[in-house]
Amino acid sequence: MITAYAVFEAKGELKRFEYDPGALKPDEVEIDVNFCGVCHGDINVLDNEWGMTQYPFVPGHEVIGTVAQVGERVQHFSMGQTVGLGWFAGYCNECTQCRTGDHNLCADAHPTIIGRHGGFADKVRAAANSVIPIPDGTDLESAGPLLCAGITVFNPLVQFDIKPTDKVGVIGIGGLGHIALQFFNAWGCDVTAFTSNDAKKTEVLKLGAHQAINSRNQAEIEAAAGEFDLIISTIDASLDWNAYVGTLRPKGRLHFLGIPKEPLGVTVSQMLSGQRSVSASPNGSPVNIEKMLKFANRHNIKPVIEKYSFDQINQAIERLRSGQARYRIVLTK
Amino acid sequence: MITAYAVFEAKGELKRFEYDPGALKPDEVEIDVNFCGVCHGDINVLDNEWGMTQYPFVPGHEVIGTVAQVGERVQHFSMGQTVGLGWFAGYCNECTQCRTGDHNLCADAHPTIIGRHGGFADKVRAAANSVIPIPDGTDLESAGPLLCAGITVFNPLVQFDIKPTDKVGVIGIGGLGHIALQFFNAWGCDVTAFTSNDAKKTEVLKLGAHQAINSRNQAEIEAAAGEFDLIISTIDASLDWNAYVGTLRPKGRLHFLGIPKEPLGVTVSQMLSGQRSVSASPNGSPVNIEKMLKFANRHNIKPVIEKYSFDQINQAIERLRSGQARYRIVLTK
Repeated sequence: MITAYAVFEAKGELKRFEYDPGALKPDEVEIDVNFCGVCHGDINVLDNEWGMTQYPFVPGHEVIGTVAQVGERVQHFSMGQTVGLGWFAGYCNECTQCRTGDHNLCADAHPTIIGRHGGFADKVRAAANSVIPIPDGTDLESAGPLLCAGITVFNPLVQFDIKPTDKVGVIGIGGLGHIALQFFNAWGCDVTAFTSNDAKKTEVLKLGAHQAINSRNQAEIEAAAGEFDLIISTIDASLDWNAYVGTLRPKGRLHFLGIPKEPLGVTVSQMLSGQRSVSASPNGSPVNIEKMLKFANRHNIKPVIEKYSFDQINQAIERLRSGQARYRIVLTK
Repeated sequence: MITAYAVFEAKGELKRFEYDPGALKPDEVEIDVNFCGVCHGDINVLDNEWGMTQYPFVPGHEVIGTVAQVGERVQHFSMGQTVGLGWFAGYCNECTQCRTGDHNLCADAHPTIIGRHGGFADKVRAAANSVIPIPDGTDLESAGPLLCAGITVFNPLVQFDIKPTDKVGVIGIGGLGHIALQFFNAWGCDVTAFTSNDAKKTEVLKLGAHQAINSRNQAEIEAAAGEFDLIISTIDASLDWNAYVGTLRPKGRLHFLGIPKEPLGVTVSQMLSGQRSVSASPNGSPVNIEKMLKFANRHNIKPVIEKYSFDQINQAIERLRSGQARYRIVLTK
């Protein structure tokens, strides 16, 4: 039996819940959960915002733990090995995306917390090729959020071949953005933080930004016209995106990781003369997660976390909902 | 003196017009005009749609001719050499874009027909590095439209590193699109024409498409979900662009060459799961125009043209305005 915390209705409280996971599948790894991050994605599913949640439902998809059991066909994990599990717990392994290393773009990828139970539990299971070996020297307590928030912001650096000579921006300095600033700085780039919270301006410099711009100040944004090779947006709110396209250099890209509900309102004329692009991406592939973890270790990049014990789970969720968490929440045993 | 056809007021008729171009500048080439294409861009400026037209105004920016005079610093052109001139007649030569070969993205590039006189004339002048040597074997009569319409649709193949194994689409089979089909076919790609005109479906296959889809038929578009690496849109009308984003493969791109006035209405959620991009670009660089001309010769790619003599210029403009031209109009001596 697996002992977990489950929600029994949309927006409900988490309660102790036991379930029988059945026999371990040949390609699965069972993980003893030591730490698990709490992510906005957990709340999206918990609240049934995407209309696909089945209750009872165990959230949790930023797991750090150790291998407790391996399926009979699993070859590359050993008992007791330190591993992680992020947004995806399995892939179709057959589509073009899976066969070209873009597992995160697999249309049939299995999110860890959709149609299956996640990591707010003593154990969690996943397909071996979605389980991430955690390199030696990793700060295990804070590493969980790298497996979802971290890879989401690291991935564009790899996908779009960003150079250390590039000028990059991060819109929204929260759970994703505060990790992005660290990655972009360590990547060697000239880093600008866009934040609507002027109180954060000192803090973003410590996190790796070289300068800060108020994300809602039209004059500051216009003054930055034509400067950026890449800007990532981590927010769900809608801004004047045409103004942000205007801050891009020729061939620059405005890339979305947060998901505003409204259409972007971007015009062709704003993109055309500078050959600019607008795009979006989800999470990252297992191999890129491994690359990211080694890069994070080498550059001492860590999510800034607030810790709660697993039995404080409802407080942790409330803290995340409040928007006050600085910057990620991790559950510890 | 240069003898030309000029417009004297917005939407006016073209009339004979003589002007004194003054002394040839050291970096300029003077071209005896033999052929000049008529492009929608000429009408945009003629009608003062962009609010920057100064009258009298001589349109024409798809010139094929021969070198009549070279400035004292010009080294790479000789008298009588066959040359072309497209949308741009000069660049700043100092900005990052000019110094990295992306002259068409130079913010201070000088369009041939804005603030200066174009090619509906016996002669036209331009900076030497915007004048294009026309390779031997080129069909001179039909080559003019390659210098604006042609490079505009060829450029994305180069910019986005399109592979011969890619599946590509062209929205709008008119002046730009009918050349795009030829280029994309010769590039080795699987080519789909999107046209609202079912009567063109047979013709697009001759031009290089392997199949055609009705661009306004939602069912046909939905049936093509997830298929395309690149789709270019050559139209100014607004379609359901989210539906077109849905036809892209993971990492696919919807790229605009025509300029719809309305915001695109694209949502992040439609781009995100497949890491899709939306973008736009203007024209192409001089070096890519040269590459294009050699590629066109090797693959026998020619704009399909209707010919008018220079003194039929007003009829030619009316024909273009009618939307009936198949597919480009060229003025001949």
